[in-house]
Amino acid sequence: MSTLLSPTERTRVRRIRERARSDRADLYAVLDEGVVCHLGVVVDGTPRVIPTAYGRSGDTLYLHGSTGAASLRSGAAQEVCVTVTHLDGIVVARSLFHHSLNYRSAVVYGTPRALTDPADKLTALQAITEHLVPGQWDALRPPSPKELAATALLALPLDEASVKIRQGPPTDEEEDYALPVWAGVLPVRQAFGAPEPDPRLRPGVPVPPHLTR
Amino acid sequence: MSTLLSPTERTRVRRIRERARSDRADLYAVLDEGVVCHLGVVVDGTPRVIPTAYGRSGDTLYLHGSTGAASLRSGAAQEVCVTVTHLDGIVVARSLFHHSLNYRSAVVYGTPRALTDPADKLTALQAITEHLVPGQWDALRPPSPKELAATALLALPLDEASVKIRQGPPTDEEEDYALPVWAGVLPVRQAFGAPEPDPRLRPGVPVPPHLTR
Repeated sequence: MSTLLSPTERTRVRRIRERARSDRADLYAVLDEGVVCHLGVVVDGTPRVIPTAYGRSGDTLYLHGSTGAASLRSGAAQEVCVTVTHLDGIVVARSLFHHSLNYRSAVVYGTPRALTDPADKLTALQAITEHLVPGQWDALRPPSPKELAATALLALPLDEASVKIRQGPPTDEEEDYALPVWAGVLPVRQAFGAPEPDPRLRPGVPVPPHLTR
Repeated sequence: MSTLLSPTERTRVRRIRERARSDRADLYAVLDEGVVCHLGVVVDGTPRVIPTAYGRSGDTLYLHGSTGAASLRSGAAQEVCVTVTHLDGIVVARSLFHHSLNYRSAVVYGTPRALTDPADKLTALQAITEHLVPGQWDALRPPSPKELAATALLALPLDEASVKIRQGPPTDEEEDYALPVWAGVLPVRQAFGAPEPDPRLRPGVPVPPHLTR
C-alpha cells in the first residue's frame, strides 16, 4: 500500500488545509497512541457514535464489535466511520474568535468485515490486547473457544482516511497582539497512574514489568 | 424538564445494563467535564464522526458547527449524535476476555438548530468559551459583528440521551481468581500542564488566575 493517504472526496481537508497530513506514518502514529476510538454507524437513517476499544495490525484496524450496532454484529456490510482524537491543548487567544484546540485526529472510512474464523478472531484480539496493554497477550491463558465465539470483532481496512493536526500557539488578529491579554496554550495530556490491584488479587502477585510502562 | 433521562428505543442500554445511569445529573456531569465531543452526522447515507468543541447551558448543548458537515452549516434539519467519553482506566483481567475499560460516556441524539440571531450566537459562544476556559468570557473583548457572523453555531436540546459508566476492578471467571496473574486497573486521567505563553505575548502580561485552575 502507498505510504501516502490518497485523498477522496470526503477525506480531502477543506477547512484550514495546513492542518492536513498526507503521510501514512501520521495515520499510524495517531491510531497507535489512542486507547478509545469513536465508531460511527447509521441506524435507521440516523447517526450513532459509540466509544470502543481497537487495535491496529499493518493496514487493518480491528474493533470490538459488541458495542456496535446490531447491524454490524450481524455481519451485514455497512459503512462506518472511525475517529481517534488526541486532545493536546486548549489554545487561549487574545480574542474569543481565535480560541482553538491543539489536537491530532484520524478519521477512517470503510466497510468493516465481521470476523467469524477463529484464527482471524485471535489475530484481531491480539492486536486489540497489545494495543491496550502491550505485553499482555503472552502473559495470559488463551481465550477458550466459548469466549472467542462470544467476542464480536470487526476488521476495517485503512484504505480511506484523513489526519488532521493542530499544534502551537494561537493565531490572532494582527491588531490584537498589542492587547495586554495573556495568550498561549494550556497543555493537556493523558496520564497513566500507578496500577491499582484488584481487591481479589492473590497475595504476593507482583505487578509485571509490562504493566508499569 | 424531568430530572430523569427517559429512555427511548435507541437510548435504552441493552448490553450490560448495570452500567446505565438514568439521572440527568449524571448526564450534566459527563458533559461538563469533557473538552471535546464527537459529532456524528450522516452525509450521503454514510456516517461521519468529527471531534469538536462544545458547551452546555441548562438543557441545551452548543456546538461549533464549522467543523460539521456542510449540511449542518446550511441549517437544514438533520439528526445528529453527540458523544462525550472520559477514559478512566484500562481494566486488566485474568483473562483476555474480561479486559475492559473504565469510562464515563454520554450519547445525545437530536436535531440541532443552526443559530442565526446574534444574541443567540453570543449565548452559545459564551457557553462554549466558559466550558473550555472558565472565566475567559469576561477577560476578552466581545466578538466583532464580522467574527460573530463567521462563527457557525448549533444548539442541540438535551431531550434524548443515555449515560454509561463503568468503574472498578475486573470481573473474572470464578475459576480464574485462583491464577497467579496480576489483575486490577491502570488508571488514566486527563491532566493539564503549566500554561505555555505565546512567543508573541507582550512582556509583563501574567497568567490570569482563572487560567491556572
